[in-house]
Amino acid sequence: MVNKASLETLFGRILKDIVPTKSEIDDLNEYSNELMGRLKAVMPKDVEIILAGSVARGTQIRGKSDIDIFLLFPKYLEERKMEEDAIKLAKKAVLKSRGESYEINYAEHPYLKLKNEKRGIYADIVPAFKIRDSSERGSSVDRTQLHNIFVLENLNDRQKDEVRILKYLLQRHNIYGAESSRHAFSGYLCELLMAHYKSMLALLEGISSSKLPLFIDVKANIELSGASVPKEEQRRFNSPLIVIDPTDQNRNVAASVSSESISRLMLLARNLLSNPSESAFYGFKYSDDKKASQLSKFVKASGLQLDALCFKLSNISEDTLWPQLEKLKNRIEHEADTNGLNITISFSRIESGMGTIAILHNMQKLGIRRIMGPDVTIRVAADEFIRKHGGQMKISVDGTRLVALEKPKYIDVNDMLSKIISDKKFLFTKDIKKSQCKLYSKNIPVQYALVVYHGIAERLNI
Amino acid sequence: MVNKASLETLFGRILKDIVPTKSEIDDLNEYSNELMGRLKAVMPKDVEIILAGSVARGTQIRGKSDIDIFLLFPKYLEERKMEEDAIKLAKKAVLKSRGESYEINYAEHPYLKLKNEKRGIYADIVPAFKIRDSSERGSSVDRTQLHNIFVLENLNDRQKDEVRILKYLLQRHNIYGAESSRHAFSGYLCELLMAHYKSMLALLEGISSSKLPLFIDVKANIELSGASVPKEEQRRFNSPLIVIDPTDQNRNVAASVSSESISRLMLLARNLLSNPSESAFYGFKYSDDKKASQLSKFVKASGLQLDALCFKLSNISEDTLWPQLEKLKNRIEHEADTNGLNITISFSRIESGMGTIAILHNMQKLGIRRIMGPDVTIRVAADEFIRKHGGQMKISVDGTRLVALEKPKYIDVNDMLSKIISDKKFLFTKDIKKSQCKLYSKNIPVQYALVVYHGIAERLNI
Repeated sequence: MVNKASLETLFGRILKDIVPTKSEIDDLNEYSNELMGRLKAVMPKDVEIILAGSVARGTQIRGKSDIDIFLLFPKYLEERKMEEDAIKLAKKAVLKSRGESYEINYAEHPYLKLKNEKRGIYADIVPAFKIRDSSERGSSVDRTQLHNIFVLENLNDRQKDEVRILKYLLQRHNIYGAESSRHAFSGYLCELLMAHYKSMLALLEGISSSKLPLFIDVKANIELSGASVPKEEQRRFNSPLIVIDPTDQNRNVAASVSSESISRLMLLARNLLSNPSESAFYGFKYSDDKKASQLSKFVKASGLQLDALCFKLSNISEDTLWPQLEKLKNRIEHEADTNGLNITISFSRIESGMGTIAILHNMQKLGIRRIMGPDVTIRVAADEFIRKHGGQMKISVDGTRLVALEKPKYIDVNDMLSKIISDKKFLFTKDIKKSQCKLYSKNIPVQYALVVYHGIAERLNI
Repeated sequence: MVNKASLETLFGRILKDIVPTKSEIDDLNEYSNELMGRLKAVMPKDVEIILAGSVARGTQIRGKSDIDIFLLFPKYLEERKMEEDAIKLAKKAVLKSRGESYEINYAEHPYLKLKNEKRGIYADIVPAFKIRDSSERGSSVDRTQLHNIFVLENLNDRQKDEVRILKYLLQRHNIYGAESSRHAFSGYLCELLMAHYKSMLALLEGISSSKLPLFIDVKANIELSGASVPKEEQRRFNSPLIVIDPTDQNRNVAASVSSESISRLMLLARNLLSNPSESAFYGFKYSDDKKASQLSKFVKASGLQLDALCFKLSNISEDTLWPQLEKLKNRIEHEADTNGLNITISFSRIESGMGTIAILHNMQKLGIRRIMGPDVTIRVAADEFIRKHGGQMKISVDGTRLVALEKPKYIDVNDMLSKIISDKKFLFTKDIKKSQCKLYSKNIPVQYALVVYHGIAERLNI
């Protein structure tokens, strides 16, 4: 039984916290207009300059209002030439005298990240090609202008507010974010889900009773789930959540959402419907302010030991680094496993250039390991095993099989990790360097503690 | 390459330690003659009184010369009547005035165990039926008189000494003993192996290159091993070592020898042949004298933690108690396994009325356990799992499956064992009582320490 009224009351309370204040919006409007004016002055006449992203769509959350300005170049230009011109000209719009600085980042195109630390405002200035539909250009950056139009045409103000609620809910439970490495829900995906379900209540009800895969075609107003999703669509998208982009029928906007993330949203939805309370909405009450002390409190409560490898990462996109960090994590898990060490929870995580591989485990000290050998009666193999494992006096028998009792390679997880980072033979990955890696068990530096803390919160709690 | 000479030298040195001294033999002869005289005086005329066992056969080891006297009753008597008469009359031969006492023990027949603590001599007075061959009576007690005759007729003095060497070797490596619970080599089996192989050297060479099963028919002078043992014999005896009793073609004297025991003898033989040294013969240099301190030294060297359940056992035969203790040990292993606790080595052992279940394990402290639940999308099961495992806030997700992170039932092996012995629901076995059980991790009482020590020596070392 869903208590619709109490859910509405809850959402009302939460909106008071997350809708940007009037002064924040005024400030953003003023600054973005000024910036667009400056860009217009330096760009060729045929470049269209638009405000995009959540600020343009009115779905941003208070205090997280970064401005996205798109520079739309005519599509007959050569791509590299367009990128070069765009960045060169955009730089001219940055005014050092007003406290502005910039760096060049790389997504599908290079873009300029402008910081105005005085006003606390960030702006991404992103070049793209001007297109009318997705068939004209394939890049997702180019498609943003179409997304903008679709959202503005299909969501009313109430629905935009509910997108804010959805995004904030997902943030609180660590399943929000556009980076594919997060396997989470992007802002545009939230907007599309709202456009499909029309309200937060309908969305929660819909998600909570779905089977996987869940297939949604927003434009065609189709929703299918589980076995009723045509096999060909399942094969084509091979994803637990398929949300067809209304601006591009060949694209699944939810392609990077993992089955774990959609499962979590499913549980969250059920929980909120049966228990429409702030505690259910906010989840585990962590606070970024306390970071390290919160982390140690949390780890202590878990009853587990924590070892964390912390990396200062190169200035490479998280989408490139994260799979490498994940691969390294898997290698470490395998090493633990083959050496008789048990890991309860492990994860790799990147936030703002800081990477961690966190390993939570029960306390264990290995004194001896049993290594099974051949049958005693297979004499050549038996002799060889005995020789290899330190001679007769270290060999025992289990049934007719030889057993060597040996000192373990590592006595515990911490020992393994410290040996791994000094052992030249244990491979790290291309961009994840041993020299950038430090092992911490206690007193994790504050900035890494936050990353680990988020990762644990995500795993110990939906 | 076998160095026959150095093996002979080694055996010569060892014989000096284990052949009973002249005074020990004189003492035994005098006492057994006196005792047999006394028994003759109280028994009916038609009861034949013979000296049996290793003392009679000249295969006993110094200091372990217990006397076995058999009272052979005419076979037409009813069994219970014979047993009753035998015990009643035998009691009359015990002279309290000479420092003698007795207790009644039970094997296939009841028998009287006489102690002369003043002289340090024990004598088993065992009633049986007088038979000429095994077809007359089936009990193994009755067959002892036939074994006696076979051994005396088939082993010369040199071979009897080599039986002493074999028995002592097996003792040193904990694979000697007639109790079926030991899964080890009985004295009679040693004598038969010597009768078959003729010398210790040939025995070691024969055993070391055998396959299993190893089939020996002493009377027919047949030895087969591995695949050449006829399938029907393999099925009939279903045993890794088959040694046909020359006094009873239907009996495998090695029926209770486990594959582990024969495997150990195989390794021992190979090792002695390639390294005919005292260290190879004596094996791990433990000394019963130091008991507890040796145990803790040994455990420390193993790098493992030890927990031992120690039982003061009822006056029931070890052959009855041991399988129950073993069953309890298996139950404990299963409990550990299902609760995420890893055991490296465990064994149950009984020596002179003291039982132990020893558990050696790496140090472990469980803080949290992962309990895998159903798929999130199976809503009824998911809701049930969440309810059962303490509600939403304790549930996490792995892929699409729910995971509960729970406090473990036991934090470590010691915790498990102490809870088991106070938990009424955890079943012990019929004759192994909780009330007789104590848990020790350190400071194991000396008499139990010895039992545990023997068990560990047996398992950490062949």
